[in-house]
Amino acid sequence: MAIQLGPNQYGKAENRLVRVYRDTDRHQIRDLNVSSALRGRFAEAHIAGDQGDVLPTDTQKNTVFAFAKEKGVEAIEDFALTLGDHFIARCPGADGARIEIDEYSWDRIAVDGLPHDHSFVRSGGGVRTTVVNIDGVGPDRRAHVVSGIKDLVLLKTTGSEFHGFFKDKYTTLEPTNDRIMATSLVARWRYNPTGAAGEGTVNWDKTFDSIRSILLRQFAVVHSYALQQTLYSMGRAVLEQHRDVAEIRFSAPNKHHFLYDLDRFGLDNPGEVFIAADRPYGLIEAAVERDDAPEAGRAWHGIPGFC
Amino acid sequence: MAIQLGPNQYGKAENRLVRVYRDTDRHQIRDLNVSSALRGRFAEAHIAGDQGDVLPTDTQKNTVFAFAKEKGVEAIEDFALTLGDHFIARCPGADGARIEIDEYSWDRIAVDGLPHDHSFVRSGGGVRTTVVNIDGVGPDRRAHVVSGIKDLVLLKTTGSEFHGFFKDKYTTLEPTNDRIMATSLVARWRYNPTGAAGEGTVNWDKTFDSIRSILLRQFAVVHSYALQQTLYSMGRAVLEQHRDVAEIRFSAPNKHHFLYDLDRFGLDNPGEVFIAADRPYGLIEAAVERDDAPEAGRAWHGIPGFC
Amino acid sequence: MAIQLGPNQYGKAENRLVRVYRDTDRHQIRDLNVSSALRGRFAEAHIAGDQGDVLPTDTQKNTVFAFAKEKGVEAIEDFALTLGDHFIARCPGADGARIEIDEYSWDRIAVDGLPHDHSFVRSGGGVRTTVVNIDGVGPDRRAHVVSGIKDLVLLKTTGSEFHGFFKDKYTTLEPTNDRIMATSLVARWRYNPTGAAGEGTVNWDKTFDSIRSILLRQFAVVHSYALQQTLYSMGRAVLEQHRDVAEIRFSAPNKHHFLYDLDRFGLDNPGEVFIAADRPYGLIEAAVERDDAPEAGRAWHGIPGFC
Amino acid sequence: MAIQLGPNQYGKAENRLVRVYRDTDRHQIRDLNVSSALRGRFAEAHIAGDQGDVLPTDTQKNTVFAFAKEKGVEAIEDFALTLGDHFIARCPGADGARIEIDEYSWDRIAVDGLPHDHSFVRSGGGVRTTVVNIDGVGPDRRAHVVSGIKDLVLLKTTGSEFHGFFKDKYTTLEPTNDRIMATSLVARWRYNPTGAAGEGTVNWDKTFDSIRSILLRQFAVVHSYALQQTLYSMGRAVLEQHRDVAEIRFSAPNKHHFLYDLDRFGLDNPGEVFIAADRPYGLIEAAVERDDAPEAGRAWHGIPGFC
Repeated sequence: MAIQLGPNQYGKAENRLVRVYRDTDRHQIRDLNVSSALRGRFAEAHIAGDQGDVLPTDTQKNTVFAFAKEKGVEAIEDFALTLGDHFIARCPGADGARIEIDEYSWDRIAVDGLPHDHSFVRSGGGVRTTVVNIDGVGPDRRAHVVSGIKDLVLLKTTGSEFHGFFKDKYTTLEPTNDRIMATSLVARWRYNPTGAAGEGTVNWDKTFDSIRSILLRQFAVVHSYALQQTLYSMGRAVLEQHRDVAEIRFSAPNKHHFLYDLDRFGLDNPGEVFIAADRPYGLIEAAVERDDAPEAGRAWHGIPGFC
Repeated sequence: MAIQLGPNQYGKAENRLVRVYRDTDRHQIRDLNVSSALRGRFAEAHIAGDQGDVLPTDTQKNTVFAFAKEKGVEAIEDFALTLGDHFIARCPGADGARIEIDEYSWDRIAVDGLPHDHSFVRSGGGVRTTVVNIDGVGPDRRAHVVSGIKDLVLLKTTGSEFHGFFKDKYTTLEPTNDRIMATSLVARWRYNPTGAAGEGTVNWDKTFDSIRSILLRQFAVVHSYALQQTLYSMGRAVLEQHRDVAEIRFSAPNKHHFLYDLDRFGLDNPGEVFIAADRPYGLIEAAVERDDAPEAGRAWHGIPGFC
Repeated sequence: MAIQLGPNQYGKAENRLVRVYRDTDRHQIRDLNVSSALRGRFAEAHIAGDQGDVLPTDTQKNTVFAFAKEKGVEAIEDFALTLGDHFIARCPGADGARIEIDEYSWDRIAVDGLPHDHSFVRSGGGVRTTVVNIDGVGPDRRAHVVSGIKDLVLLKTTGSEFHGFFKDKYTTLEPTNDRIMATSLVARWRYNPTGAAGEGTVNWDKTFDSIRSILLRQFAVVHSYALQQTLYSMGRAVLEQHRDVAEIRFSAPNKHHFLYDLDRFGLDNPGEVFIAADRPYGLIEAAVERDDAPEAGRAWHGIPGFC
Repeated sequence: MAIQLGPNQYGKAENRLVRVYRDTDRHQIRDLNVSSALRGRFAEAHIAGDQGDVLPTDTQKNTVFAFAKEKGVEAIEDFALTLGDHFIARCPGADGARIEIDEYSWDRIAVDGLPHDHSFVRSGGGVRTTVVNIDGVGPDRRAHVVSGIKDLVLLKTTGSEFHGFFKDKYTTLEPTNDRIMATSLVARWRYNPTGAAGEGTVNWDKTFDSIRSILLRQFAVVHSYALQQTLYSMGRAVLEQHRDVAEIRFSAPNKHHFLYDLDRFGLDNPGEVFIAADRPYGLIEAAVERDDAPEAGRAWHGIPGFC
């Protein structure tokens, strides 16, 4: 029996990069949170403390900001792929890289009905995300792109039922055919690796907008018999309309809204007065996939709640 | 010398009330966080543990939810005034009440271009707030309404300078005539107590919308020489356009965006690549008021960062 | 009628200063969060954007760190007083200053039963705080020191009753003569300004340790008929044993632990199985003071939940 | 090509259970955060909204609290195993279960030097965790126990170097032979499944205490050339002393403490004055394992940062 180093990675997490494009008076902004992690042959760093093959996390940070100027920042998927390939090529010990980027969205402030050139207000409606995992270089290179949205808080005041469930002696829940359904959705979809992880073939920005719309639409229009069923129908619709998506996964807290008991005060409460609870909450996780989806490999590596 | 009880209050904080109006298929929603606190003659509860004059916080909670049905929830200012007056009248020991309400905003989900009847997505752009303080009943009643907005995250990519400041031996900051200015604004405005705290004379919802617009507009159009000056101009504009507002106060973190030093890599950085910092941050607090504003009394009582 | 600038202050918040003393192999550490704010004659900065009398927040930050070397860091009260006096003397526009410091505590790691020289583990049991407010210089100088503790999480499993309270039609709470009482205590005490805010007369570190012990002891030994009564007895004991304390204030959420209803499953639950709730929570705020306490003046200025 | 349901699970997250043992005057307390998740044959719930095989999350919640009375709460590993086996046996659709429990620790309040019978103060020094994954029943049953500690905040003021690293054109970091090293450690160790996941053979409480001590000790005594090397030595020591542990994994943010540049003010700073940074931070993740460790299977399923 021997003791040995197992899987490991290291990097710089949460580089808060803001990139401004000011070529014209109408400024553009990309507001990102970038995390890098490298993996590979780093046994000496762990066992002997030898850093010879280690590209420091501080250098990774510098590179993120330098690349924002040198390469520019368009879709976060492209920026992540560029960073990942660079780190594998540059760092002596690295065989693979994982780049995660969140993007915060901003609306232009309206002044006299017109969107302002350089003033912005942070918008709601979810944070765009991507996680890119790359292994190898050249012909052996494998790249996975998992994009998504998080903090997308949704609620419907009707069109949601829950009944017919299995009961045992600990069951006290009443079946209902009308309840509030609410969640703070995290959705992540894996792109088909056609053509080197979709590079060159997928319009990342347009696809994100389309998938976000599909998710919202399905949440609204599907009459729900369980959060599971709503998620499945959301995922199915995305796969039907996006051939370049191999699978989609959801993590969805069931943010309970309990009908407040007003009977005690001689008042009826036909779905009007609710108390929103914090904890505990239901937590529903599900994937929808194509039966011919290419293997996920490391695509989901290190994605909290999805691996 | 004797030891005695000083100022005190007690209540139920953060009642997460969701009120749905479903009289037609087009549902309306009010999503609130309601906190109540009562003050007055509660020495016996503290010194002897005698609860005879104490309306329990649990009863306060029940009342919040029962009133959502009995009285309904329109503007949060009206709901807060109704609750406050009720508690003073009802609780034997209470001379005064403080009701604080936050309101979270929701957008209808767009389906085929049309806003959905009963499905919503949580929007950004700030949380509406009110703090109502009432003392006494009948002719002696004094009520203050301080409404506001918080978590309003703003950023402008130019039109902001900072120079000409006082220097001492610890000063290393370089003056700049072009920087990013960003904040997560909290603004709170005190209404004139004309006609019983504005009741009956102020359209709370319309005034909130108008003030929010003025704040955004001023942030965008004022060329800034300091966050202080921007805040002052925002406050001044509100007071100029709203005679029913006696004063307005701001608490505004200066969310620093530092130009990343790319010189070291042979790259110039003309206001394009920034790192957003967390801590420390500048914190600017300022009030703008009418010189003939009626006395604030307890209006600002217990408002973090504003008293 | 004219519009004018009202109360204002500005500074650098949350400077995370760690000061190491390494004169011997046995290192000492002071781990602080320091916030400064200056007030005075800053109308020009707000109205005209003129920074001539403004000591930038960046300079305030530099000063905090430079003073950690030049003056050293002993008790946080002394460090705050030193910084406050310095800023008033140095900044052209400043008449007053507010310095707030939190101190995080560390235990030495035990190695073979002995505390290690330079390795530490962060301890629980509350964060020490101070807020110093100074106005003026020389003979007109007034300084207030309000020290305290926060995040002190306490719980007792018995010795707590709650009954005899006032009832109305919204009351459903059952009286109890045995419940869990739990809180996350914030306590802040104002020192008598004898001898320039207690400088030279109070041993800040020893007094903190003593008051913390008294608070814990009283929470434990007092049989409680309400959280109010427990707080009052804690405050009274502090004032009785510390002549240099003029008043003490508490903000104490009543962290509800509800007995879980196990009757439904044929199980009794004699105070054994509880669910800890997040929101809503009771919130109890109270002061205990000497009847001859000197005036508080600005002592409580800007302390969330205490003003 | 067809679209199908992929991996899924559902449950009730963050049941805040407090269990009091009061058989004698000296009360014992177990303060837990329990999350359950079931997986298996739930396609109908997703595709058709049919809940016939679904044990509702509400029932799972009730069961957690009922079992706290019926079965009692000793080591969290045992409580998790009991719950997991129960849910698989009870829920028609369940083939597997994942139970995660955090345990918050409390110290008895000292009164006159003696620990109090029923009054407690929440302690620091990390939160104990376990994640139990079970698949199947009877002879096919496979159970994995991954226990650990999180929020263990460590710091050493010397005995930490970092140099000899690979450099490229984006490298600006200076090598150092004396720096602060600090982290907020998460460590999780997988028990050998000898004898049904260690049941009956491992003393969970004693092993936790021992491993916690080893981690602290190694952090203190190992002279560090990188956080990686410190983690490896911590893991190695645990495996050497605990035959029942198959592997241990770490997730460790490098909480940077930067030497503040005091040169600018004519002051030297020989490792005395630091600024603690929030973001970005280094993030080091590593596993140490036996070369003959049994397969992990689903042991690490759904553990954020570890899968």
